[in-house]
Amino acid sequence: MTRTRPAHILLIEDNRMDIELTLDAFREHRLNNEIHVAPGGMEGLDYLLGQGEFADREKFPLPDLILLDLKMPVIDGHEVLWQIKQIPTLKRIPIVVLSSSKEEGDCALTYDNGANSYLVKPVSFDGFLDVVHQIDSYWLSLNVPPPL
Amino acid sequence: MTRTRPAHILLIEDNRMDIELTLDAFREHRLNNEIHVAPGGMEGLDYLLGQGEFADREKFPLPDLILLDLKMPVIDGHEVLWQIKQIPTLKRIPIVVLSSSKEEGDCALTYDNGANSYLVKPVSFDGFLDVVHQIDSYWLSLNVPPPL
Repeated sequence: MTRTRPAHILLIEDNRMDIELTLDAFREHRLNNEIHVAPGGMEGLDYLLGQGEFADREKFPLPDLILLDLKMPVIDGHEVLWQIKQIPTLKRIPIVVLSSSKEEGDCALTYDNGANSYLVKPVSFDGFLDVVHQIDSYWLSLNVPPPL
Repeated sequence: MTRTRPAHILLIEDNRMDIELTLDAFREHRLNNEIHVAPGGMEGLDYLLGQGEFADREKFPLPDLILLDLKMPVIDGHEVLWQIKQIPTLKRIPIVVLSSSKEEGDCALTYDNGANSYLVKPVSFDGFLDVVHQIDSYWLSLNVPPPL
């Protein structure tokens, strides 16, 4: 069950500043993970289903971990999460919700829909660095990934 | 959503040596978490349902995190996990499986049944210390707990 290649992460996030912050934090922390960005809920589902511009699985492999924003137009994170959990080939991939929402309702719905973890987006770059460090250390090193 | 009291952890584990190792590691790492031990699957469910010897919720509060062994007699960890996820008042509590099994089938079933994370039991005390440190740092500090 040990991973023999760098981990692939899929970041589903529509906010350009948050995308840049997350990518910068991963770059600063560790270079050998591959991060793919889907800039919205619809693009996230397209990526995971290998549809449209993401049809090439060599170039866009199934991720080992999904980082999911909640507040997105058209298809929001709750809907993306719910849909992923209905698809047998995708439902085991660990999903960490990374949201700026501190609403109890968002947090509760996220757990009810089967997210593995709920993190609040840090407000500073140092905060992002710490979150990325812990995501890497816990989810990409200590946690045993599901067989896909 | 911030926790204002020490976190309560429920360890569901039948192996006495593993119980001692885990408790020692938590003691060495940090003193202000409360760890409750249920020495089997049946006792784990009794604890969570507030039944039998665990009827006093003041003394045996619902935990913030469940650490769950898999290989246990009578009711094993897979069955405990499945049952917890059927109970609306319990299903949101994060469950980290801590098993010595490296079988893909155990890992897959664990994710299919809705566990939040799967960790393999370390073979040394230093390994237990590291795992406990990461559980504390990730699940009891960074992760936002579900509203119960």
